[in-house]
Amino acid sequence: MSHKVEILSVGTELLLGNIVNLDAQILSQGLSELGLNVFWHTVVGDNPQRAREAVDIAKRRADIIITTGGLGPTCDDLTKNVLAGAFGKKLIFHEECAQGIRAYFQRIGREMTDNNLQQAMLPEGCTVLDNDWGTAPGCAFFAEGVHVIMLPGPPSECRPMFQYRARPYLLSLSEGVIASHTIKLFGIGESTMEAQLREQMNAMTNPTLAPYAKEGECELRVTAKAPTDQEAQALLQPTVEQIKQLFGRKVYGVDVPSLEYVVLEGLKARGLTIGVAESCTGGLMAKRLTDIPGASQAFKGGIVSYTNEIKANVLGVPRELLDQHGAVSAPVALAMAQGARQALGCDLALSSTGVAGPDRDDRGNEVGTMFVAIATPEDSFVRPLHLGSRPVRERLRIQTASHAFDLARRYLAGLPYGKQT
Amino acid sequence: MSHKVEILSVGTELLLGNIVNLDAQILSQGLSELGLNVFWHTVVGDNPQRAREAVDIAKRRADIIITTGGLGPTCDDLTKNVLAGAFGKKLIFHEECAQGIRAYFQRIGREMTDNNLQQAMLPEGCTVLDNDWGTAPGCAFFAEGVHVIMLPGPPSECRPMFQYRARPYLLSLSEGVIASHTIKLFGIGESTMEAQLREQMNAMTNPTLAPYAKEGECELRVTAKAPTDQEAQALLQPTVEQIKQLFGRKVYGVDVPSLEYVVLEGLKARGLTIGVAESCTGGLMAKRLTDIPGASQAFKGGIVSYTNEIKANVLGVPRELLDQHGAVSAPVALAMAQGARQALGCDLALSSTGVAGPDRDDRGNEVGTMFVAIATPEDSFVRPLHLGSRPVRERLRIQTASHAFDLARRYLAGLPYGKQT
Repeated sequence: MSHKVEILSVGTELLLGNIVNLDAQILSQGLSELGLNVFWHTVVGDNPQRAREAVDIAKRRADIIITTGGLGPTCDDLTKNVLAGAFGKKLIFHEECAQGIRAYFQRIGREMTDNNLQQAMLPEGCTVLDNDWGTAPGCAFFAEGVHVIMLPGPPSECRPMFQYRARPYLLSLSEGVIASHTIKLFGIGESTMEAQLREQMNAMTNPTLAPYAKEGECELRVTAKAPTDQEAQALLQPTVEQIKQLFGRKVYGVDVPSLEYVVLEGLKARGLTIGVAESCTGGLMAKRLTDIPGASQAFKGGIVSYTNEIKANVLGVPRELLDQHGAVSAPVALAMAQGARQALGCDLALSSTGVAGPDRDDRGNEVGTMFVAIATPEDSFVRPLHLGSRPVRERLRIQTASHAFDLARRYLAGLPYGKQT
Repeated sequence: MSHKVEILSVGTELLLGNIVNLDAQILSQGLSELGLNVFWHTVVGDNPQRAREAVDIAKRRADIIITTGGLGPTCDDLTKNVLAGAFGKKLIFHEECAQGIRAYFQRIGREMTDNNLQQAMLPEGCTVLDNDWGTAPGCAFFAEGVHVIMLPGPPSECRPMFQYRARPYLLSLSEGVIASHTIKLFGIGESTMEAQLREQMNAMTNPTLAPYAKEGECELRVTAKAPTDQEAQALLQPTVEQIKQLFGRKVYGVDVPSLEYVVLEGLKARGLTIGVAESCTGGLMAKRLTDIPGASQAFKGGIVSYTNEIKANVLGVPRELLDQHGAVSAPVALAMAQGARQALGCDLALSSTGVAGPDRDDRGNEVGTMFVAIATPEDSFVRPLHLGSRPVRERLRIQTASHAFDLARRYLAGLPYGKQT
């Protein structure tokens, strides 16, 4: 029998639109990978009656209920009370939980208020899911033919709690194996990609092929279901190869988290270092590189030059270039990258300059006019971008940084820098 | 009678976790502002039977149902079929809709495939909600005591369709006004804050008080309902003042988006400029400041110094400090801030250095050991942080950057820098 999962999120902040239901997405991804069918997401507020009604509905239609939120002291542990009630269970004090909570506060050096101990009240006979990422422990129990798993609400806790606590519990419930590979592309639009694949996609059943687009990048997820991982992999491999051939140098990796990750790995493999000089991206390139643990093995540093003075004094961009072409120009982008190589003492340097909005610059450059450049021991190259003024500031900055990373990954892969896309 | 709203989203991509339910957040925000109570979010996949069951449940408990998604030709217009069926209505061809769809394709210069005309099939007697942002029109009808509004799924269409089509329709249904203020705090834990407010929170009905925590910050939302905005504001004001007094200098603003926003506003008001020197935050401080449109009025630039060489050569940190104390130390944090003031030519400079993980540094400093410093025309100050090793890298970096911003906002507000929290 194949399982039916409902994700039930508890939190008035979701119903007020203060936050987006990221937990539901995190869990849905993880559950899909386990081959478990998520059929419903439900959100209710911090209201015991409506929460109970939602649980009663979920009980009737699902055989796995995963809740998020409503576990902490600030909401009277609503979720635990309601779920315990719905399944006729009492909440009892779990001393080992209380110890864990006390230890957590000791570790972060904060005084523990007594209301925190309420979090050690859990349904009788449940499996406690220790929370190493916050104070509220989760729990799991099986009753009336339904598996119930309760996880904390903050995504920074919910994510690892699923991965390291709920997932092992659920693994035993899934039948067969779902395996997938994600092929990442840069420099192609989603609709172009889809048009090239549509017929094939429609004809495929196992593996299946699903396209996604975000922030100017595309990805294709190939997913296969089989009794064993080995069999699933054998189903996946030919399709992955075929897609890599079809899209050629636009494919920057398979099962890699990001462009910047590919850049860092390429640098480390060749013993090279990188630095950045940022104007319009304002620190985003450095931030994205240093988001990756171990970035310091290849990333040396960055200079955010939001003024012409810093471009001239710290990066050594010639004043006459700035005067003649303006800060948003190909020559300045090139000089910034070359200057960063010198100032930071790195092998490769990337730069960005452009108009991220909300207004055009004082030389009349439109929002979305961007230049990214690379300087290497052998050459330097600038790529002009016209991203249009419709994407919001944040998206323009993300896309611009990604174009700079694309130059670096092309250099490292021995590919031509190519044109804009 | 006060209305009960259910948002019903249709789309398998939500259940697979491919996308997050941004529509539900957009609509919830907009509905809350109209004083309409959203009590449920439900998500079902592209499955007629489960969609119908979800509609039947929604019909019983809500008197306003707003659907998102499932309107386009690729999903066989599932939502329209299911909703029409649930309310015993037929779908009929709307010629004026067909014209709109033809006109849309003409405008974007694409050929229209015939399946697009299926989108002109809408429930009999409905109000058509023209879609100027895509092809699938929305619609609204009232039947069996329930208002039904159907909106397209892509957030770039759903957002304006709500704002310009659904909102005017709903405006007539809302009674009174909901107004709220959000008080933002830094340097206090959620449970401590909640413990100080619990009795009061439980006693309050209008306004209500709701605490939220994220990334080491806390906020309190005070919400009041009244016939007019003026009356709602009069209800809110005493509570806002009381909370500001209770938490004193931990309150960094009311209805402000972020700490860094408060810092930038404070700088602009005083005609001061700022720069940053970042080690462990790796560009995040600069990124957060430049996320804000108009940051260039006060933000001059930043230096990401991931190596001792850059700390010495670009920021001018004395070699002997680095050798004697190591890069992760109070004296180096101070020297980085002071050096950034010089190198970037700004009035204020902030710095960060620490161990963001995954491993302790080569001097044995634990993950979570951080120093943030500020240098101003009058003084400089360093705040040591022990954030613990449990938060993930990303969270450690966010919290560290926030602590640096907290130093700047305290300087700008004339407050003592204070201790860690």
